[in-house]
Amino acid sequence: MPRYKLTIEYDGTPFVGWQMQDSGLSVQGALMAAVEALCGERVKVQGAGRTDAGVHALGQVAHVDLAKDWPTDTVRDALTAQLRPHPVAVLAAEKVPDSFDARFSALRRHYRYRIVNRRPDLALERGRAWRVPRRLDDAAMTAAAQSLVGRHDFTTFRHIDCQAKSPVKTLDRLDVVRAGDEVRIAAVARSFLHSQVRSMVGALVFVGDGHWTAADLAAARDARDRSACAPVAPPEGLYLVQVDY
Amino acid sequence: MPRYKLTIEYDGTPFVGWQMQDSGLSVQGALMAAVEALCGERVKVQGAGRTDAGVHALGQVAHVDLAKDWPTDTVRDALTAQLRPHPVAVLAAEKVPDSFDARFSALRRHYRYRIVNRRPDLALERGRAWRVPRRLDDAAMTAAAQSLVGRHDFTTFRHIDCQAKSPVKTLDRLDVVRAGDEVRIAAVARSFLHSQVRSMVGALVFVGDGHWTAADLAAARDARDRSACAPVAPPEGLYLVQVDY
Repeated sequence: MPRYKLTIEYDGTPFVGWQMQDSGLSVQGALMAAVEALCGERVKVQGAGRTDAGVHALGQVAHVDLAKDWPTDTVRDALTAQLRPHPVAVLAAEKVPDSFDARFSALRRHYRYRIVNRRPDLALERGRAWRVPRRLDDAAMTAAAQSLVGRHDFTTFRHIDCQAKSPVKTLDRLDVVRAGDEVRIAAVARSFLHSQVRSMVGALVFVGDGHWTAADLAAARDARDRSACAPVAPPEGLYLVQVDY
Repeated sequence: MPRYKLTIEYDGTPFVGWQMQDSGLSVQGALMAAVEALCGERVKVQGAGRTDAGVHALGQVAHVDLAKDWPTDTVRDALTAQLRPHPVAVLAAEKVPDSFDARFSALRRHYRYRIVNRRPDLALERGRAWRVPRRLDDAAMTAAAQSLVGRHDFTTFRHIDCQAKSPVKTLDRLDVVRAGDEVRIAAVARSFLHSQVRSMVGALVFVGDGHWTAADLAAARDARDRSACAPVAPPEGLYLVQVDY
């Protein structure tokens, strides 16, 4: 029963999110249907990160156990061909030991958030970035972001439905970079709480547009209170970029 | 009767192209409907370049004459609001002299062509780039491209329906740059023949994948024969980036 590690790209727009739900099309469900079409087996595809509806992935990782020992190129190409009606592609398939778990073996998750900082509506980037019309001070955002790096209680930046046992996480990096009218935020950690990246991005935008000072952001962090958070950034700007093992 | 210069971004996917046609939604038609909704006037919106169906624009330019002297910010924001159901945005509106003509005053047009050079299907970039599965030698493409730069008879690289009087054009630049699995081709000229950029890109891909040598490309140019061209690159990788005046 060989285990395969899959690296997956998707446009999150048409999906209810990564995880299978009672109704609606999920990325996980589309992948499980593709596996079933290939192998005739209904088996679970376990992902590294449960991306929300509308959130994209450039490098989601999942594992799946197949009864037959398929060549890895066949797994990659056949699953991608089965997925073709949907904006999902399997970029790579590798054989891994049974001890590999896409979720629990992950050492680091890399997310990117894309803001287009301009007044006109998005056309080409519609559904792929968050348009913020007010001019953002990216230097102020960069400075303020450092108060979230390190080991903290992230209760303020956690969805009320978050099921993690502890709100304490270690954030390795939170970088803000502007290129023209695009502001990109990179967040790296072993793991994140539910909605943590989008909550931190919303708070940084509050700093960038002058609603908050860096001290206000640090105070929101120390409040450990969800109601102290700024409005959460929308899902369409968020990308799961890479998972390290 | 003030004349306005509009800078326009669009996702070409849902359109029959820039130019109004007997049936189907065109970018020009969507803009003229937006002008009519704003001003009650049915007036022509003249574009700098007639992009084909599926071709995108980051900076198409057009001009329009309005009866009333509207503030430029109002023109930009009101047209963009009217266009909202469609993936089109007016990035800027400026007042220009009556002598300004979006098509005939243009000094230089900048196009970009995006190739994703990988085996798996596109997911996030579907409709926004051309996937070429065979490994492309971008150094060979760069070298071969130079035989198209300068003043040449581009009959080989011209659509059979092209209505330009002469097939002789001066190509200022044709640059090929790889970044990871993306190969970008930049083409700059005062003006282009119909399908010229996509025809040149198709020929460069024939060089990049080993079908042609640089000498074969130069021979195809010298043939001045449409049937000597390589398969034309699909529209979804092409972007009208900028027009200089």
